Amino acid sequence: MEKKVIVETSARHIHLSAADVDTLFGEGHALTNKKDLSQPGQFACEEKVELVGPKGSLKVSVLGPERKATQVELSYTDARTLGLKAVPVRESGDTSGSPGLKLVGPAGEVELAEGVIIAKRHIHMTTADAEAFGLQDKQVVSVKIENDSRSTIFGDVVVRVSDSFALAMHIDTDECNAAGAFGVVYGEILA
Amino acid sequence: MEKKVIVETSARHIHLSAADVDTLFGEGHALTNKKDLSQPGQFACEEKVELVGPKGSLKVSVLGPERKATQVELSYTDARTLGLKAVPVRESGDTSGSPGLKLVGPAGEVELAEGVIIAKRHIHMTTADAEAFGLQDKQVVSVKIENDSRSTIFGDVVVRVSDSFALAMHIDTDECNAAGAFGVVYGEILA
Repeated sequence: MEKKVIVETSARHIHLSAADVDTLFGEGHALTNKKDLSQPGQFACEEKVELVGPKGSLKVSVLGPERKATQVELSYTDARTLGLKAVPVRESGDTSGSPGLKLVGPAGEVELAEGVIIAKRHIHMTTADAEAFGLQDKQVVSVKIENDSRSTIFGDVVVRVSDSFALAMHIDTDECNAAGAFGVVYGEILA
Repeated sequence: MEKKVIVETSARHIHLSAADVDTLFGEGHALTNKKDLSQPGQFACEEKVELVGPKGSLKVSVLGPERKATQVELSYTDARTLGLKAVPVRESGDTSGSPGLKLVGPAGEVELAEGVIIAKRHIHMTTADAEAFGLQDKQVVSVKIENDSRSTIFGDVVVRVSDSFALAMHIDTDECNAAGAFGVVYGEILA
């Protein structure tokens, strides 16, 4: 059985805590769904936040819904633009010891102490997908993307299994560019 | 035999024709060697040129010596910053039908009609290296780069053989970021 997975590119973005939404956009502000994402319940918001680093700043989209902790996901290219050093490649939620930066919204600013990561490439899948593929939560696999100029096999891809997920691999913009993975792209999981 | 090769990252840069050096830097100007590169006779210059695209501009280093034709080598990230679409992934020198842009130097400007490419990843090697590795000029190979977070196998890597070369693989900044290939990095050629 061929283990095919759609490969989606995540541009830089931010997840916000309810408290930081209040500070940045005003007390009691509700995030506005602009577009549903492939993962059930997740959406890109109309709201944007400015990230201010030691060297530069970048506007990023907010992804909803609110989360327990604010987390910024960048590419290495973005980290360099901002002047942030030692941004770790991590799984979502694993932000301990990561750098912070200043967030600027229309209603206020937040000095984020930590929470800036480069997302480790990963595949979301349901338990049924995992069983069909013979894979387990947290398993590390490789994924092959083929085209006519930049075919690439990405190693260190973390499998994440939950019935709240939909089957999709997520890479960042540097990884997308390196593999020429533009448009609708599928990868093959090499276990 | 393990086929090891050092992996070097080429940031965006420009090679200039003698005529374009004259226009950009002044009649009879000689390029100034700032730093020798790994390929014999090639050097990074003190001179910089501004690339002006439809959406933005970027400063790039000039690489010497002068060449027959002016050629700009970007990453996909750079192409997006400049607003250039359909920049092809090509081998050096193969610029037919590629986009152009405006070059701005201290003494003048050049409207480059074509010559902007994204360099296809490649390995420079001597005939002795090629014999030792059992590889040939223009052969397409894969190269594995291993580390603890972004191990990657790059396919579509072109072998280029000449006794004027030194053994080194060249990738662009997007590819470097995608593979976490910072510092002194070696890859293994998988033929």
